[in-house]
Amino acid sequence: MYAYKSLDFKSVKVKDPVFSSRVALALGPMLKAVTKKTEETGRIDAFDLKWKEEEPFKPHVFWDSDVAKVLEGMAYILALAPDPELEKLYESWVDRVVSAQQPDGYLNTYFTTVEPGKRFSQLNWAHELYCAGHLIEAAVAGFEALGKRKFLDAMCRYADLLESTFGMEKGKRRGWPGHEELELALIRLYKVTGERRYLCLASYFVEDRGSAPNVFTEEGTTINLSAIQAEVPFRKQMDLHGHTVRAVYFCAGAADVARETGDEELLAVCRRMLDNIIDKRSYITGGIGSTPVGEAITADWDLPESTAYAESCAAIGLAFFCSRMVNCTLEPRYAEMLERVLYNNCMSGVGNSGDTFFYANPIQMLNEKNNSPVLNSGQKGVRQEWYDCSCCPTNYIRFLPRIGSFFWSADEKSAVLHIPAACEIDTPQFGAVVSGTYPAGGKVTITMTKASACDLSLRIPLWAQKFSLKAKGEEFECQQGYVKLSGPWKEGDKIELDLEIKAHLVFPHGNIASSAGRAAIMRGPLVYALESCDNPQGVHNCRIRADASFAETALPGDLGTLLPAVVCDAEFRSSEPGEPLYSSKMPLWNKGNLFAIPYYLWQNRGASDMRIFIPFY
Amino acid sequence: MYAYKSLDFKSVKVKDPVFSSRVALALGPMLKAVTKKTEETGRIDAFDLKWKEEEPFKPHVFWDSDVAKVLEGMAYILALAPDPELEKLYESWVDRVVSAQQPDGYLNTYFTTVEPGKRFSQLNWAHELYCAGHLIEAAVAGFEALGKRKFLDAMCRYADLLESTFGMEKGKRRGWPGHEELELALIRLYKVTGERRYLCLASYFVEDRGSAPNVFTEEGTTINLSAIQAEVPFRKQMDLHGHTVRAVYFCAGAADVARETGDEELLAVCRRMLDNIIDKRSYITGGIGSTPVGEAITADWDLPESTAYAESCAAIGLAFFCSRMVNCTLEPRYAEMLERVLYNNCMSGVGNSGDTFFYANPIQMLNEKNNSPVLNSGQKGVRQEWYDCSCCPTNYIRFLPRIGSFFWSADEKSAVLHIPAACEIDTPQFGAVVSGTYPAGGKVTITMTKASACDLSLRIPLWAQKFSLKAKGEEFECQQGYVKLSGPWKEGDKIELDLEIKAHLVFPHGNIASSAGRAAIMRGPLVYALESCDNPQGVHNCRIRADASFAETALPGDLGTLLPAVVCDAEFRSSEPGEPLYSSKMPLWNKGNLFAIPYYLWQNRGASDMRIFIPFY
Repeated sequence: MYAYKSLDFKSVKVKDPVFSSRVALALGPMLKAVTKKTEETGRIDAFDLKWKEEEPFKPHVFWDSDVAKVLEGMAYILALAPDPELEKLYESWVDRVVSAQQPDGYLNTYFTTVEPGKRFSQLNWAHELYCAGHLIEAAVAGFEALGKRKFLDAMCRYADLLESTFGMEKGKRRGWPGHEELELALIRLYKVTGERRYLCLASYFVEDRGSAPNVFTEEGTTINLSAIQAEVPFRKQMDLHGHTVRAVYFCAGAADVARETGDEELLAVCRRMLDNIIDKRSYITGGIGSTPVGEAITADWDLPESTAYAESCAAIGLAFFCSRMVNCTLEPRYAEMLERVLYNNCMSGVGNSGDTFFYANPIQMLNEKNNSPVLNSGQKGVRQEWYDCSCCPTNYIRFLPRIGSFFWSADEKSAVLHIPAACEIDTPQFGAVVSGTYPAGGKVTITMTKASACDLSLRIPLWAQKFSLKAKGEEFECQQGYVKLSGPWKEGDKIELDLEIKAHLVFPHGNIASSAGRAAIMRGPLVYALESCDNPQGVHNCRIRADASFAETALPGDLGTLLPAVVCDAEFRSSEPGEPLYSSKMPLWNKGNLFAIPYYLWQNRGASDMRIFIPFY
Repeated sequence: MYAYKSLDFKSVKVKDPVFSSRVALALGPMLKAVTKKTEETGRIDAFDLKWKEEEPFKPHVFWDSDVAKVLEGMAYILALAPDPELEKLYESWVDRVVSAQQPDGYLNTYFTTVEPGKRFSQLNWAHELYCAGHLIEAAVAGFEALGKRKFLDAMCRYADLLESTFGMEKGKRRGWPGHEELELALIRLYKVTGERRYLCLASYFVEDRGSAPNVFTEEGTTINLSAIQAEVPFRKQMDLHGHTVRAVYFCAGAADVARETGDEELLAVCRRMLDNIIDKRSYITGGIGSTPVGEAITADWDLPESTAYAESCAAIGLAFFCSRMVNCTLEPRYAEMLERVLYNNCMSGVGNSGDTFFYANPIQMLNEKNNSPVLNSGQKGVRQEWYDCSCCPTNYIRFLPRIGSFFWSADEKSAVLHIPAACEIDTPQFGAVVSGTYPAGGKVTITMTKASACDLSLRIPLWAQKFSLKAKGEEFECQQGYVKLSGPWKEGDKIELDLEIKAHLVFPHGNIASSAGRAAIMRGPLVYALESCDNPQGVHNCRIRADASFAETALPGDLGTLLPAVVCDAEFRSSEPGEPLYSSKMPLWNKGNLFAIPYYLWQNRGASDMRIFIPFY
């Protein structure tokens, strides 16, 4: 197993046309909006432990996690852009959070004020250990990014309490997080403190979950055990299903445990899960979760277009999982999935104003749905400022500032480039500037900014049908996948990668019932979509030739990026007023053009119809 | 407004190839199975009012309705096929039900044993008035079908209590059924008793619902008011949405009120609702309800194939609504919808063994879903014997015995034939035998069995592209829609209707995002479907020509009806093992045949893949 580490986000300055603008949003309007909402909704006040029955702003079981995620994001943002005002706010929030800690280390607002005395009794649904995980991650982030210890020390005491409570050893009780996340948080805490007990507790959660007698059943859970990955032990799980965010967070934690313990068998189980997602259970955008019912991954090939849930948090979780797996395996398919989910589902979750978010990310939108009074927001086609369950907005604030860390990994002797987006990196062993407009264009130049003995591996994407690679001016013959260029390097050495990026149709597997007879437009890693504001003839009533060819043109100016739009010939069904819902009359087709934009940019110009998969003939 | 009445089910002997076998199932295995389940699950015992906290078989808010519906069905079945054993059981159930009635007439097991003292305080969700409605319908059925008064008298006392409780008059309180159904029950009770107060109460429920101040809001409902048709008064409602069964039951009740009060304006609102369903919100099977989330009708054109809910009860409710509207309007489109839902969604809800039921009726099935541990039964592709919420099985037992009453209507001077299925009818004014194999074949002969002065109107379906009509041996020129043949008739007079019935493609409206680029096979009123057991090359990976032609062949013998199967040329995507989920490679197509069966007969040979809408080119 490889032991590459993703570069620290502080070592990667993001400069590309897609991600850099999103990072800027995170540092600006998003931080402001999310901070405001977190305060307004009572989530911060909850830590004062003053709530009483009948009062408004009753703490909810998952509120602590939202505060923790915003704190985590603030730490990264402060590291990228120091700001005394923000730091003061950050410190005051940390003080209030830590003030809620009980003498024995316990910290949970819900079970301190709303249901005191019920601590650790309703693990299956109460998000108690999930909140603990996010608090721990936030504390680790504060220490790693800013060197601040107060929160970290407090959370070590909480982790110590958890560690002395849960496990198989004498004097401990069995118990698992109802919503996984604590596993990966404990690994982070282990890595920053060196305290092996935290690794052991994470390992315990990964290994014991789903074993008989079932902890959740004994608690009297009414939740389907399969929906929370607790019907069999992870090592016996054959596919990935159930609540999507839980599922991928758990896999990311398991991959961490496999890596830290060198457990190849456990890593193979993680591979099985990720292979299942890649081969049979993911949308073309990298989205996972096929239904709002239980927010779940369901079954092989079950990828309905109309109800794609593809939650933003699931996409972020999948990026975490893929990145860990890439670092352990250097498997090109996993990197491809990482790139797919980053550029499409992860980016679509945030609007261009930076303060609106999709919870679910539709891949097909019928605008009428926006006006339907009976659909819940998870199925709506308009980004919202906040949600009652607002996990997604608070996830972006901690995800986007670190996005550069997905591009590069390294170990002592080598650097690995996964995503050739423009950036500057600088580590003690290695320094380079990646230039180009990727993925607007496919020409990428890597210029060494310091002498280095490291080898450099870089990824030729599997989607790249034509490509060339030059190192220090010389052609380098290679295959798709990771290509290793041996060091040493001098300052100023150049590597030139040229990937052909042009729009083409992508055909979903014939077993996907919902997409039968349809194809999508992709251009490099970006999925394209038809939006009704660009296609006045409609987006649901058209078809294209299977061998359609595409021209490129400028995006509408208000979308503000140098990525191109894509245009192609198409046919549109003619329709007459009063046409019946189902008719024996064969459709008539009119010639016309389709205009497609990068999927992630849709719904930035009002509510609209949208589709990715177009009937072909 | 017309005042046709559907013929009493006892006047119509059903003899056709589709419905007659389902009626036989209802009288045999279905009655047995449903009776057993109703007893086993504690639903009957609940009426003994002996349940105490902590005991098993805790009465549920909707249990009374299940018992009522089985009692209603038993009454019809006893009328069709007297059986002393069954009658004894029926009497004993009635005794137990009536024994639970309180001195003031109130009858509800849940609010007598589980939450005593909370009567009428949680109308929004508690199904209290819904249960009252079904009890009243059952009592009316017992009187109408069997002449039994005990249950009816008891339910009149309950209705009197309701009538003196709810309304706008001094001394009454406002209140509406959380789940509508009581409205139409009260009309039935009014018609059988002549007691106008019951009509007034029904009218009050129809008119006041949704008015400000909102009764449900004042109760502190957490339910979306739109989901229960309570956000605006019915007359201001512009489309039909929300919980599907509630919505259509309410419309049926409103249509009854419109008719009994001669209110053309109210009828126009009912028309608007039914037009909205027919024009924009129904599946090709007549199914309504596009999502399991809230079991709801959602928005115009929102008819996803993968999550079609199309609940059996909604189909039955839509048949009720359509039938009432046909009787008031003789609108051919409404009769067409009635026929569509009867032959497709209504019939698919019951398996060929008679003791298994779909709750939701999928229009596309990916077999893998059946193995998914995380999907709820409402989305599963296998009929079940019973459901925790078992409204559908208990609806069939009261629906199927009466199915003949949908075929014919009459008033003093005329008879109207809506569905030309083989049957014998006999009323004081009119008698006829309808012979033929409709809808296996389109030749229908109506032979008068008595002299009659009545006019006869009969429907030429809008789907019939070729047809001819002869009366007493002479060609009769006519259009599609209702055709009036004037009486008088002698015994032996014949009318010969010849409808061309052949398989052809039907194209969904271009605005239906989910079915873009696809078409369905229909043959007469029957929708056809591809089932994987007949199509070893798969059902989700094929395409057909837009001008495909069809041959007919015998159905597999185990499906046991003389309806034909349909075969056509098609192309199947070739696939290689290990093909990626999304590929740039253009699909290759192999020639082959598709084999389609009537949709309603699917899933009678085990779990299978199924689809109705096939990509065309």
